[in-house]
Amino acid sequence: MYPVILALDARIQSNETPELVTLGPRVKPEDDKKNMTNPVLVDVIRGTTVESLHRGAACVVDRNGKLIAAWGDAEAAICPRSSLKPLQALALIDSGAAAAFTCTSEEIALACASHGGEPIHVDRVAAWLKRVGLSHKELECGAHLPGTESAARALLRGDEKATAIHNNCSGKHTGFLCCALHIGAATKGYIAPDHPVQRRVLGAIGALCECATTNVVIDGCSAPNLFMPLRALALGWARLPDGLTKPMKAHPELVAGTGRPDVELVKAMADGGVAKAGAEGVFAAGLPDQGLGFAVKIDDGAGRAALVALAAILRKHGGFRRDTDVAALLRPAVTNWRGTRTGELRAAGPLTTV
Amino acid sequence: MYPVILALDARIQSNETPELVTLGPRVKPEDDKKNMTNPVLVDVIRGTTVESLHRGAACVVDRNGKLIAAWGDAEAAICPRSSLKPLQALALIDSGAAAAFTCTSEEIALACASHGGEPIHVDRVAAWLKRVGLSHKELECGAHLPGTESAARALLRGDEKATAIHNNCSGKHTGFLCCALHIGAATKGYIAPDHPVQRRVLGAIGALCECATTNVVIDGCSAPNLFMPLRALALGWARLPDGLTKPMKAHPELVAGTGRPDVELVKAMADGGVAKAGAEGVFAAGLPDQGLGFAVKIDDGAGRAALVALAAILRKHGGFRRDTDVAALLRPAVTNWRGTRTGELRAAGPLTTV
Repeated sequence: MYPVILALDARIQSNETPELVTLGPRVKPEDDKKNMTNPVLVDVIRGTTVESLHRGAACVVDRNGKLIAAWGDAEAAICPRSSLKPLQALALIDSGAAAAFTCTSEEIALACASHGGEPIHVDRVAAWLKRVGLSHKELECGAHLPGTESAARALLRGDEKATAIHNNCSGKHTGFLCCALHIGAATKGYIAPDHPVQRRVLGAIGALCECATTNVVIDGCSAPNLFMPLRALALGWARLPDGLTKPMKAHPELVAGTGRPDVELVKAMADGGVAKAGAEGVFAAGLPDQGLGFAVKIDDGAGRAALVALAAILRKHGGFRRDTDVAALLRPAVTNWRGTRTGELRAAGPLTTV
Repeated sequence: MYPVILALDARIQSNETPELVTLGPRVKPEDDKKNMTNPVLVDVIRGTTVESLHRGAACVVDRNGKLIAAWGDAEAAICPRSSLKPLQALALIDSGAAAAFTCTSEEIALACASHGGEPIHVDRVAAWLKRVGLSHKELECGAHLPGTESAARALLRGDEKATAIHNNCSGKHTGFLCCALHIGAATKGYIAPDHPVQRRVLGAIGALCECATTNVVIDGCSAPNLFMPLRALALGWARLPDGLTKPMKAHPELVAGTGRPDVELVKAMADGGVAKAGAEGVFAAGLPDQGLGFAVKIDDGAGRAALVALAAILRKHGGFRRDTDVAALLRPAVTNWRGTRTGELRAAGPLTTV
């Protein structure tokens, strides 16, 4: 059903005996998940004592679906939230919409973004919408203040109102709209799970990640998201086509925002390596050259821990450039309102790096 | 050493055979805490599936130190953060400073507050500082934007700079300053752990909570805080004198901020009942009429879960007024940027309420 997606990545076909693992419909019922005890992956230290701790699951998968490493329950169903965005953008490319609308590398990066609502993001999304004959009024993601504080302050100082274009997901939604226009579907209501665009998006994800796409939920931006095994998310990231990873690698500041550690992470990653955070403690990454995908889900939803856990795993698997100091990603400081260092986050248990 | 504190609360003395439990120096080493597995207390649901979950410990203690109920490890050392504020304010009363400076009920409430930096807070702290001959320049808590969004927006619109008076801890620090003035200590450097004010504060806490005060750490506002057993925190709250609980009960909006669920919680609590959140997933409460203290620490530091867990425990122990609907505290909705309900938080495991 989505041959173009797989054809985009010749590396999958190059393996003559693909050891494809069918992850199938493994959405676990609530009670199973409650009884699962994942290991502590990250400690939060104040002074010299553990103040808080974060349990979670993580895994590394190759593009044939082979599980290279796992910590905790990698089969449990998790909701990838915004770490799904590059997979949601598959349909933009696969449908031919990106080519038909001559989408730039920057626009593809924005389609995969949880951006900070800064002028570099908002201006590009506005120009993209205008080029295809639309405006922010067609975006159905809801409005919120820019995530980057300086951009939020500037908006408030100018007494300007935040619109849907400032929503961190406005690039993804513009991608959905392009897809709708290209396949001749209605633009209004493009976020409904049964809209042709979303059916195509979920179909592409199911095909690439080899998982059921039946447990569909509503995301913070009102678009559909889903529960899928953590391992399936890593598999999708192992298989992301160059058409998506190259723009994300070229424009990390468009995928996130000024000063965000996500940007530093992607810049520090080995050739071609990309990563994307999701709400509720999810972080996924891909190393196209090694053909590896990574996924982390912190049980309690803490993004601060997902970043540290992913950084520790990437370090174990050669995910960083050799000339890069990643200490600030592995052991970020906790500081207080006066800037005093009061503690730090630190990979723990099976991910201990020190 | 701190007879005044105990004398303030005649109810402790009224028990002729006090069954005082010496909690002693039980600050656990890091490794013990890492190996502890507390139960899941709160689930975060998206659609119909558990998206995230929060483990933690909680306990109920009477004012004689008897453990009435416990979930998870109530002996583990935790850092109470801002739930310590009413205990830090003991010294303000005990030293005689509050009486000497004719502190109002509102000012005592502000000394116990993590306020939203709104005019109702800032104006009162400013007036209090002025009355004792000081200004925000003497506050050593650092500056941050008001926690209440409307107050932050107003400040930004007016292009005004946040000062230490907008810091959520400015009332507590003003209390420290009053204490310093009254005991004839230097106001400068009042946040140093060995400053006479902080020695007095820690001494009062150790006496009331019957715990060691040796593992001192630096809080977000630069003042000392400490690691203490969760049970000792609950004991302190069970023993809070009327001189502190009555102002907190009378002015919940001064202790927190407009629209905060903490305010709704305290308003819904039974006669005299008060509560206070702390950073990193701590929540403590006291029911003076029943002589009970409550403390919750969510392992991962999530405040959203601490509130739900405390509400569930208070409901089990008659902590709410009978005529009050606490559904929004027990099962708060998760909504997205368009206001769509996408899920909810729900007390889980041993705290399940439905």
